[in-house]
Amino acid sequence: MQGTTLEEKVERIVAGQRLALTRAITQVENERGDWEELVDRLYPETGDAYRIGITGPPGAGKSTLTQKLIAHYRGLGKRVGVIAVDPTSPFTGGAILGDRVRMQSEGMNEEVFIRSMATRGSLGGLTIKARDVADLMDAAGYDIILIETVGVGQSELEIAEATDTTVVVLVPESGDSIQAMKSGLMEIADIFVMNKSDRDGSDQAVSALKTILSMRITHAEDEWIPEVVRTVGTTGEGVDDLVGRISTHHRYQERLDLLTERRRQREEQRLRELTERYLHRSFWDEDREKMFRDLIDTVFARSLSPVRAARRLADLSLEVDR
Amino acid sequence: MQGTTLEEKVERIVAGQRLALTRAITQVENERGDWEELVDRLYPETGDAYRIGITGPPGAGKSTLTQKLIAHYRGLGKRVGVIAVDPTSPFTGGAILGDRVRMQSEGMNEEVFIRSMATRGSLGGLTIKARDVADLMDAAGYDIILIETVGVGQSELEIAEATDTTVVVLVPESGDSIQAMKSGLMEIADIFVMNKSDRDGSDQAVSALKTILSMRITHAEDEWIPEVVRTVGTTGEGVDDLVGRISTHHRYQERLDLLTERRRQREEQRLRELTERYLHRSFWDEDREKMFRDLIDTVFARSLSPVRAARRLADLSLEVDR
Repeated sequence: MQGTTLEEKVERIVAGQRLALTRAITQVENERGDWEELVDRLYPETGDAYRIGITGPPGAGKSTLTQKLIAHYRGLGKRVGVIAVDPTSPFTGGAILGDRVRMQSEGMNEEVFIRSMATRGSLGGLTIKARDVADLMDAAGYDIILIETVGVGQSELEIAEATDTTVVVLVPESGDSIQAMKSGLMEIADIFVMNKSDRDGSDQAVSALKTILSMRITHAEDEWIPEVVRTVGTTGEGVDDLVGRISTHHRYQERLDLLTERRRQREEQRLRELTERYLHRSFWDEDREKMFRDLIDTVFARSLSPVRAARRLADLSLEVDR
Repeated sequence: MQGTTLEEKVERIVAGQRLALTRAITQVENERGDWEELVDRLYPETGDAYRIGITGPPGAGKSTLTQKLIAHYRGLGKRVGVIAVDPTSPFTGGAILGDRVRMQSEGMNEEVFIRSMATRGSLGGLTIKARDVADLMDAAGYDIILIETVGVGQSELEIAEATDTTVVVLVPESGDSIQAMKSGLMEIADIFVMNKSDRDGSDQAVSALKTILSMRITHAEDEWIPEVVRTVGTTGEGVDDLVGRISTHHRYQERLDLLTERRRQREEQRLRELTERYLHRSFWDEDREKMFRDLIDTVFARSLSPVRAARRLADLSLEVDR
């Protein structure tokens, strides 16, 4: 990107130039050069994309379903951006990479942009980064942004939730719904998908899920009820229904003015996280790291409790005028 | 606790008085009154207990295994403290409460102290609180502290890892090992337990797990290899082997001076988290909350990007002399 000015970058991204977007995402992910100015300058260009989170346990067929959704939205003439957040265990890296490569072939089309993000090494910052990447795609004029994450771990759930519609994908396997409840997937779903619905036991799985869901219905006026859509990702069966249900959720939120509220809350959450992050960075400077090393020795000798030591360290920031 | 001085509380806890410990834990959990002084004063009394983390997916039989471990350590004349961290979904609350009640009956014995901690509402602070509670039990003279958490979610894993030996419990179900890898359970295990080993398919499950583990062996000198112990929690089969393996891990760490190092790292991690927490609390005062509200309006109007707004907020703390 040497020689390219900030202005040029912004122009090219907004004009929808693929390579400019690819480079910008890498730059933002790695926090290189003028990335903050770039994110800053592109922010006013965001707000038009509809963001859809797709999450669920490993093996639920999220990637296949995402591919079918891409095809569907392309058929409607939409430009589609995809963010795939991988759990990069050293063991599963290979298999997942395979999925991505297959998915990328879909992305050769000019109107589809697919980006993988690794969780490894960036945990904590991942939620923040995924939102930045979504903003870049939004500014680049993608109409629909699909954000696919594995519903395991707090930050993956947060990413899936920080969208306009959150789709939770399950499969008819014993205990899958139960597992989903325990891991917090239940709470974030706007729509449930029972994928691989051609399998044995899918009727029972759907009715078990519906029973669980019925316990949550409050019968409040205009309450959104997260229905269960049955799909077969491999054949594309039910994907029309899913897209229809997503549209219904979109309209529902607009009608009750909930979409603005949801987006506002998302930005609030983001601002808070970003602030904490900058605070953290300014706080842990060389002096404080040194003080920390000294204090931990004292703590480990049991001359000072961790609570007392932490108070001493944290107070410093407010006492010393820097 | 009205009328009881700090000195009296400390004395009673160190003397092993059950009621004093129960009250102290509640006080610390709720951060009431002189809880910090209490934690502070008891800290020098800690360091003698051996802490064992027991984690794994829901339904792996952790509670049953924990009960068997309690019985075993009691047979060795040890005083046993247990911290059970619940994932309190509104749906599963009942079932889990049942487990706890059954477990508590074991705890009627004077030499066993069992405490449940809810994850609901205290996420983020839970890791910190679980360590405080473990310290209180340590100061009260419990020799063995068993910390049982569901291996779902970052903070539950952190709690299980912040011990002297971490035991990961799996069951011979298809995909359980794979699931464990993805959720980060694999990385924290010092010992694996294949529980419900009387079930069909347990031989295959054990060899699958061993294959996965063999990929991680580096053949470094004195490397600890996390072996797989087979148990049947309901009958107690294999629990002797598990206890033996825990002892071996204890001795291994002592021989190589790793236990001190591990405990030191634990306290470092804790001090860092505590410091961040206090920093967070001092930071978000009334003025900053007000500034936050103002900034979020500007951000939502897209006149200012979240990155810029966050920088502005975070910088404040370092500029203003309070």
